[in-house]
Amino acid sequence: MKNSAINATDIPVRVKPSVYPEPFASRMTGREKCPLGDFFGLNNFGVNLTRLTPGAISALRHAHTKQDEFVYILQGCPTLHTNDGATRLEPGMCAGFPAGAGNAANLSNDTDSDVLYLEIGDRMAGDSANYPDDDLQAVQVAGEWLFTHKDGTPYE
Amino acid sequence: MKNSAINATDIPVRVKPSVYPEPFASRMTGREKCPLGDFFGLNNFGVNLTRLTPGAISALRHAHTKQDEFVYILQGCPTLHTNDGATRLEPGMCAGFPAGAGNAANLSNDTDSDVLYLEIGDRMAGDSANYPDDDLQAVQVAGEWLFTHKDGTPYE
Repeated sequence: MKNSAINATDIPVRVKPSVYPEPFASRMTGREKCPLGDFFGLNNFGVNLTRLTPGAISALRHAHTKQDEFVYILQGCPTLHTNDGATRLEPGMCAGFPAGAGNAANLSNDTDSDVLYLEIGDRMAGDSANYPDDDLQAVQVAGEWLFTHKDGTPYE
Repeated sequence: MKNSAINATDIPVRVKPSVYPEPFASRMTGREKCPLGDFFGLNNFGVNLTRLTPGAISALRHAHTKQDEFVYILQGCPTLHTNDGATRLEPGMCAGFPAGAGNAANLSNDTDSDVLYLEIGDRMAGDSANYPDDDLQAVQVAGEWLFTHKDGTPYE
């Protein structure tokens, strides 16, 4: 019954916590993603229900070249970091990041309570991601992310 | 400051209440859509914060051939109608409708309180929509919906 409605929190957490290479994958500790869109068999975009425990971050701060991204805060007060600085968010707030705009973003949970939000991103072919704060770059090849140092050398 | 976060309820309601021809447009009375994704300049998918006042419906029951759709209930208890029947939803519940699956869906607000939900849909080219309960069909041409009777004759 893939088409039935379900409580979002009943959808299992993604098995692989992070696709980043180390040392970046370990920095995603405390982040849990429930792939809501995948659960229903959606292909064109992903919708994740993501939980950040205190101290966790959503991702390395990044900007996509092809993928639009959008977040909607359901619970807790994360801090949004962009090229313009930091902003404290509240439940009911949202933010969008158009592909190619170069505004690198992530969320951090700097509070003592869990943060819960919806994140949406499409799956345009030929995407790449830039990480202004880290020695990392990523290109999508055949649906898989390929991560390298900024000089193009691979991570182990 | 298109890239700033904002309270979703501060994003203006869409000016045109419905793109349906009459008599269907009038059946959308009580439905208000705030185009959150468009506000931030997203192109690849739309995210709307949609309010249904008591008695209102989300859309005519429909299925897309190319567009994936997803809803997440924020407030109130709408009824989800699909090919399989009716299901009462609650805040925190979600449902997804993969393109081409043919499961025609909509929401109705059969309660005395407002319903508020997020709806997400991509913008794949060449989409069309089927309406099993109504004498209506729709094809997307150059980004605009073209509605006809099921026999192909146009609406006025």
